[in-house]
Amino acid sequence: MTAKILRFLAEERPETPCLIVDLDVIAENYRSLRRYLPVADVFYAVKANPAPEVIKLLVGLGSNFDAASRPEIEQVLAAGAAPESISFGNTIKKQRDIAWAYEQGVRLFAFDSEAELAKLAESAPGAKVFCRILMSCDGAEWPLSRKFGCDADMARDLLIRARDLGLDPYGVSFHVGSQQTMLDQWDIAVGRTAMLFSALNAAGIELKMINLGGGLPAHYRSDVAPVDVYAEAIMRAMTKHFGNNLPRMITEPGRSLVGDSGIIESEVVLISRKSYDDDVRWVYLDIGKFGGLAETMDEAIKYRMHTANEEETARDATGPVILAGPTCDSADILYEKNQYQMPLSLQVGDRVRILSTGAYTTSYSSVNFNGFAPLKAYFI
Amino acid sequence: MTAKILRFLAEERPETPCLIVDLDVIAENYRSLRRYLPVADVFYAVKANPAPEVIKLLVGLGSNFDAASRPEIEQVLAAGAAPESISFGNTIKKQRDIAWAYEQGVRLFAFDSEAELAKLAESAPGAKVFCRILMSCDGAEWPLSRKFGCDADMARDLLIRARDLGLDPYGVSFHVGSQQTMLDQWDIAVGRTAMLFSALNAAGIELKMINLGGGLPAHYRSDVAPVDVYAEAIMRAMTKHFGNNLPRMITEPGRSLVGDSGIIESEVVLISRKSYDDDVRWVYLDIGKFGGLAETMDEAIKYRMHTANEEETARDATGPVILAGPTCDSADILYEKNQYQMPLSLQVGDRVRILSTGAYTTSYSSVNFNGFAPLKAYFI
Repeated sequence: MTAKILRFLAEERPETPCLIVDLDVIAENYRSLRRYLPVADVFYAVKANPAPEVIKLLVGLGSNFDAASRPEIEQVLAAGAAPESISFGNTIKKQRDIAWAYEQGVRLFAFDSEAELAKLAESAPGAKVFCRILMSCDGAEWPLSRKFGCDADMARDLLIRARDLGLDPYGVSFHVGSQQTMLDQWDIAVGRTAMLFSALNAAGIELKMINLGGGLPAHYRSDVAPVDVYAEAIMRAMTKHFGNNLPRMITEPGRSLVGDSGIIESEVVLISRKSYDDDVRWVYLDIGKFGGLAETMDEAIKYRMHTANEEETARDATGPVILAGPTCDSADILYEKNQYQMPLSLQVGDRVRILSTGAYTTSYSSVNFNGFAPLKAYFI
Repeated sequence: MTAKILRFLAEERPETPCLIVDLDVIAENYRSLRRYLPVADVFYAVKANPAPEVIKLLVGLGSNFDAASRPEIEQVLAAGAAPESISFGNTIKKQRDIAWAYEQGVRLFAFDSEAELAKLAESAPGAKVFCRILMSCDGAEWPLSRKFGCDADMARDLLIRARDLGLDPYGVSFHVGSQQTMLDQWDIAVGRTAMLFSALNAAGIELKMINLGGGLPAHYRSDVAPVDVYAEAIMRAMTKHFGNNLPRMITEPGRSLVGDSGIIESEVVLISRKSYDDDVRWVYLDIGKFGGLAETMDEAIKYRMHTANEEETARDATGPVILAGPTCDSADILYEKNQYQMPLSLQVGDRVRILSTGAYTTSYSSVNFNGFAPLKAYFI
């Protein structure tokens, strides 16, 4: 919670719920990543926070962009990014969207299947393509499923096939899982990628790029290591498995660049107990799962929360609460199993601040579920 | 899938993904509910599908409305509904929204806690208030948590307090759980409500209304009993527990009125396997959890699906599939555990129809997650 955000909240008293993003934090996070991992090109994962203010800032800082869809590419181009700085990183693309992106000058595409490769060969001839491989992803708070990627032996065959189809078999990508806290996951993934580089070398193909994905954490309820610790683990893995012959390295940070830049200001709508012998209070906020906090699904992401009058209530006793959103949907509960504590003096109308909510919030908001408007955001 | 919808799809070939709603189905469902449960007043749960076309139709048919928020009330009033036909049914309301609704003429409010009652006493003096009680809800496909309602003994005390605060202690509400398929749940709930009526009678308060909530099903993958079977179960429970002295009855159908009225037309973006020995295909549609199919969360609602060329492929063998959405979010999987089958001949570009998607889809769509636009809807 930066001084700039605190000042904005104190002076503007914006209507809740709303997200305040301090753009300086994003700039600092970007520079920090460049400083500690200077050999890697940064491709910002637009989906983490697609606000024009964020994109513009990152264009200005020289970032590249990982886009998930045609509208994201449109937005990045509109903000002044060069088409060569864009990776169409979704492995699930409509043929007509590939063709459109290629026409705009985008030349870097992800794939993980034969069918996607066929689309690329037809609509993006000669483009650089990289194959995403499956990872197991222990230790990630927002876990990955098997939705993306394929087995390494299939990846090898597909990259050979890419060459035969007139594409440029450019490299390999993986994702260790968002909010990844186990450092050795990078070692496993880089090792697997290096083996694939060798296998393709044997087939006469020299891959040129390793895409390390995202996975660097933001600061939620658990403490996380600073970016330099991750950078060091990644570089150690790279030199261990590639020696001096390092390929081009790409990272796709989303959460780690923008997550900690924002806080959501919300209001307590209701505090209640369900029966006389309940020792847990239900605290209902004016934001919930469908208003921007979708990542509380299965209580995966555990945000830090501050009650606004923290200083005054610091001496107060706290007690367990179940936190829920304002909709009539019974699934709209934020935290029930992960016991949160709040001051016993908490009152209806008090403000509650939800920290590190700069990533994966605004764009996740529902259009108007239960009539509630999407999360409003201020970029300062 | 009505003839009207099929004709629309054949003639218009709308861009996917989109929802087509046949308004005639909603009108027929409304009339059917009135026919089989004539003593109950219908309060349509606006949140199920808040489209102006749906609201207008139901205003015309004489429906009342269960609104979850100020914007929903605004919308219902704008469609020509009288304020007396509106119940502000959310138990979690901001004080200023209660005051605003009261100014508009709304006089029926839900509550389930002391704090909410205090707000109502201050901002809606003299209004009819009903207390929601907790139910356990076995048998519901979209389960209820303990988020709404309070224990019966607390409800009794709160209704007495309502009178002392100058409010009209009007009745009791419960909800047996959305998509409820166990008929005896109504018997349990009505029985508990009748006991509460007696307890308040002993305190000199005559409650006048029982709000049966929603819970009647739409037709997803499991077969469901027709509405008359539910109506009969409800009336049996009412006469068993209330005898000839029936209170005013209210139902709040959402899913059962609009669910079966709509189908989503989607397109297969990709079909792939993750490894050579996978016998399950991954089928990626252009709609997923964040584009309107939020109720597939934890695979709770299991939609029926048709591939568009069903007739041609009827003789085809089918095979198991995992169904997923188009975003780069690994949680955007529709069905993985509940094995769905699709024709082995299914191809990229084929259309897939998702049935009974008239409720809880459009308004759940994310604003622009991964850049994808919210679900477009046609009302015919």
